Amino acid sequence: MEIKIIGFDADDTLWVNEPNYREAEKEFCDILTNYISEKEAEKALYKTEMQNLDLYGYGAKGFMLSLIETAIKISKGNISSNEILNIIAIGKKLLQKQIVLLDGVENVLKNVSKRYKLIIATKGGLLDQERKLKKSGLAKYFHHIEIMSNKNPDDYQKLLLHLEIKAEEFLMIGNSLKSDIFPVISLGGKAIHVPYHTTWIHEEIDGSHNSNKKYMEVETLSDILELL
Amino acid sequence: MEIKIIGFDADDTLWVNEPNYREAEKEFCDILTNYISEKEAEKALYKTEMQNLDLYGYGAKGFMLSLIETAIKISKGNISSNEILNIIAIGKKLLQKQIVLLDGVENVLKNVSKRYKLIIATKGGLLDQERKLKKSGLAKYFHHIEIMSNKNPDDYQKLLLHLEIKAEEFLMIGNSLKSDIFPVISLGGKAIHVPYHTTWIHEEIDGSHNSNKKYMEVETLSDILELL
Repeated sequence: MEIKIIGFDADDTLWVNEPNYREAEKEFCDILTNYISEKEAEKALYKTEMQNLDLYGYGAKGFMLSLIETAIKISKGNISSNEILNIIAIGKKLLQKQIVLLDGVENVLKNVSKRYKLIIATKGGLLDQERKLKKSGLAKYFHHIEIMSNKNPDDYQKLLLHLEIKAEEFLMIGNSLKSDIFPVISLGGKAIHVPYHTTWIHEEIDGSHNSNKKYMEVETLSDILELL
Repeated sequence: MEIKIIGFDADDTLWVNEPNYREAEKEFCDILTNYISEKEAEKALYKTEMQNLDLYGYGAKGFMLSLIETAIKISKGNISSNEILNIIAIGKKLLQKQIVLLDGVENVLKNVSKRYKLIIATKGGLLDQERKLKKSGLAKYFHHIEIMSNKNPDDYQKLLLHLEIKAEEFLMIGNSLKSDIFPVISLGGKAIHVPYHTTWIHEEIDGSHNSNKKYMEVETLSDILELL
């Protein structure tokens, strides 16, 4: 069946994201160095993030709140107010980061947008993602941006209902097997995986899911031009 | 021209919201009572919220971050880590509030959804608003939920493009003249104002805008049934 709409993931598919979070985490661990090792701080942060995920969802603001909560807990309340302000500043810096496009992205979008209706389908805060899209200069290639609270099959089902197309008419392109590829395939949609070198542990999946491949994988986004 | 889609604001149009924020603010001021009066605390909080609005946008998580930042600043760093955890707890409680529907809402939606395509058009965090919609039991009446980073004319223009309808084919219903009524009217759309007794100061506008009314106003949501 003909593809009617192509969905692009944004973070680490169109532009650099995860390395910015890693940098913020590194700065956070530096603040806590008097209380706990970097490795333990990372572990404690991840635990807090997972505890808060259902409540906060994805995005920088929930990340900031989890940083603060983790810092207070692992310092046993000894962290100073000033250090907490420094943690808030790390988060504000993250929200204001320059956008660095991945290789070949603009060329691919220029080409593909002439032939298909494109949308961005991404998790994270709406305002933050809209700001990144604006800064990226890529907004003109997309019909609109769809912020998803999560990327489970249910969420894609809702998206398809909203777009008023069948799963077979939808192609999703992204760097996360767990969020961009498997849920779409499971509904009968199409998907192209473009791996990225840095993946948040929460987005990692065990390799056994790979056994029955029904999606395509390319090395860089430019390679999709040969497939479409 | 015939109405194709009706947009409903959610907070304080379909369900109680602002009073929950007022309650959270009251609890926040109680924590700060050793440092500053309630009135001054409210003023300082509003100042922080306005400074952060471009960066954080609307919603409970940005509100929580502004609470923490305000508490540290107005206590001159004397607030304890434990008190900051209490502030985080106020925010988490806010995110988990029960939904209280406003009078007549379900009956109106049941009736109107038979004749029109309905959407929710709201600011705030996506996950939070989706959760509220789910808890409300009203999801079945809406085609989908549109989270808007802001409700300026530009944002409604983007929404109309996305919905692929003309302004004249869109009717917006909500409690905020500033966010739900005037921007839609300015684009040539239709709007019905349903005032609510409690309004965030940021949503208030000066009366001079009211001079040239081109929208309708009803006392309760049920009254729209006579207009449609």
